[in-house]
Amino acid sequence: MNLMNNQIVLTSLPKGKLNTTNFNFKKTMLPVPKVGEVLGRTLYIAIDAASRAWMQADTYRPILRDNELMPGLALVEVMESQVGHLKPGDLIIAETGWQTYLTIPANKLVALPEIEPLTNLLSIFGVPGLTAYFGLLQCGLPKPGDTLVVSAAAGAVGSIVGQIGKIKGCTVVGIAGGVEKCNILVEQFGFDSVVNYKEGNIEENLRLTCPNGIDIYFDNVGGSILDAVLSNMANYGRIVCCGAISQYDQKKLDVGPIGIPGQIILKSLIMKGFLLFDFLHEQDRAIQDLEKWVKSGSIIVQEDIIDGFEKLPEALVGVLNGENVGKRIVKVANRNE
Amino acid sequence: MNLMNNQIVLTSLPKGKLNTTNFNFKKTMLPVPKVGEVLGRTLYIAIDAASRAWMQADTYRPILRDNELMPGLALVEVMESQVGHLKPGDLIIAETGWQTYLTIPANKLVALPEIEPLTNLLSIFGVPGLTAYFGLLQCGLPKPGDTLVVSAAAGAVGSIVGQIGKIKGCTVVGIAGGVEKCNILVEQFGFDSVVNYKEGNIEENLRLTCPNGIDIYFDNVGGSILDAVLSNMANYGRIVCCGAISQYDQKKLDVGPIGIPGQIILKSLIMKGFLLFDFLHEQDRAIQDLEKWVKSGSIIVQEDIIDGFEKLPEALVGVLNGENVGKRIVKVANRNE
Repeated sequence: MNLMNNQIVLTSLPKGKLNTTNFNFKKTMLPVPKVGEVLGRTLYIAIDAASRAWMQADTYRPILRDNELMPGLALVEVMESQVGHLKPGDLIIAETGWQTYLTIPANKLVALPEIEPLTNLLSIFGVPGLTAYFGLLQCGLPKPGDTLVVSAAAGAVGSIVGQIGKIKGCTVVGIAGGVEKCNILVEQFGFDSVVNYKEGNIEENLRLTCPNGIDIYFDNVGGSILDAVLSNMANYGRIVCCGAISQYDQKKLDVGPIGIPGQIILKSLIMKGFLLFDFLHEQDRAIQDLEKWVKSGSIIVQEDIIDGFEKLPEALVGVLNGENVGKRIVKVANRNE
Repeated sequence: MNLMNNQIVLTSLPKGKLNTTNFNFKKTMLPVPKVGEVLGRTLYIAIDAASRAWMQADTYRPILRDNELMPGLALVEVMESQVGHLKPGDLIIAETGWQTYLTIPANKLVALPEIEPLTNLLSIFGVPGLTAYFGLLQCGLPKPGDTLVVSAAAGAVGSIVGQIGKIKGCTVVGIAGGVEKCNILVEQFGFDSVVNYKEGNIEENLRLTCPNGIDIYFDNVGGSILDAVLSNMANYGRIVCCGAISQYDQKKLDVGPIGIPGQIILKSLIMKGFLLFDFLHEQDRAIQDLEKWVKSGSIIVQEDIIDGFEKLPEALVGVLNGENVGKRIVKVANRNE
């Protein structure tokens, strides 16, 4: 066997919009697992818009450096194991970065259940599903009859937030870019209505769509859409701060929403930010609920799978440009190939 | 008896900073109470920076109109009564506007206890005291050891917030303008430390003063001070949005804080706005606590009393310029004169 490990590194931090030319391909020797480690083969890598924020500033991780292996979460098949609790063929989720093989300290890894399709481990039962679940339920506190607005509504998190909102009896309004995505929100995900932010005045369209005000805003985008939502919030509304995609793919942050703190005071609003990490101790219950909802058909899982390790850079650039519907995942290898 | 009622009207909405020339004096006939009403004489009028926000936009009340009687809350002595539950000499708090006499529908009015000094009914046991109490305790959720930062710390609300923070075991840091106010915060109100926002870089000074980050920020000012605090918040911090004085006395709102929503997400922060109205059903308990703390000396009540009805316009302009320490109140008449 003469395998090599393929890697993709971020050669330079982007100055403006991220481009595929910011990345470069590299080959390294296949690593050998030490005691306590496994050798893993990357099957699927999740594409996450937040990656772009890691290139902008220190976040929950230090800012990326030039020529660093591009980080990323992946579904991995164990090839060789130097630990008792994992064996070749087992599936794990790990922070692998963008590479085809790696050795990983295994003490905290657990073998995942075999589910069909496997990619659901990176979508509905992974980061985006859990983010939607905890963000909406723990921070948004939905009640039947609430008007819930979600931005980036066709995205990995947004599409699940909207569907959980329907399960909880909310009137669900999605904000998305373009007629095609808006149609999918209503026809496929069962949203009650949509606002296409690329057409007309979003503040006014929200006012028409939500005549009684917005009780919950699940914010994936920040920026000017947050401004427009703020002026349409109902008294005692909750704004769940999950992401700020509009701010990631540029050199400098925009100034903040003009209605803060005025609107927050006048309407007794809550803005609550969270990281998935805050809620991981409740993960088991969340997965049980999500499994039940998927099984019953209450949640439709949409994934956007792109084939080929070499497609990773353009897959991320595309997510930042709003190409995807549902979770974008890059397929790197077949299992047991 | 040939009394006239003196009024002060807002002749024109200010275009930029509020000026005494925006007001005018008027005399009207003394009103006569109808059945169900009382005739009241204004003793003390509370000066409230929020008045300036009422000239800027619709808030919890419609925007003021040109030549409207200037609104204001006052301590009033009943002169004549057409209701059974109030008699001449009783004290009430009412929205009187800036005038010396008025008739008021009395069904919701209650006679207040006689306390010394009477003005405490407009400060510690009135709007600012209750605002500080509910804002800090219900929205800020202070725990012993928390670092609490309060802006406009020498003001009516801020000075009480800081003292309640000390009672609850917080390390209390006040932000105020000028060395004199900062000294008062430490020496009179027992704050642990202060940041003078008129000197040096406030973001850096906060970082030095709060090396472990800010757990609670009680925000009375908004604007660039909120920006500076945001970047110094600790994880899971709470920002209590009480006021935005920095934004009131100008034609247009500034743009919002640059760290929102980014900082809110990364640090799992909560920003919570409130109006005193939200908590009035718990008023009795609050007053009991405040009375206990004043009696024991845990809270020092500071008032800034200016004598003379005609001083009302300059008293408000002065509050907007940060002149006052503690609650500014204008004395209009002696009791039983």
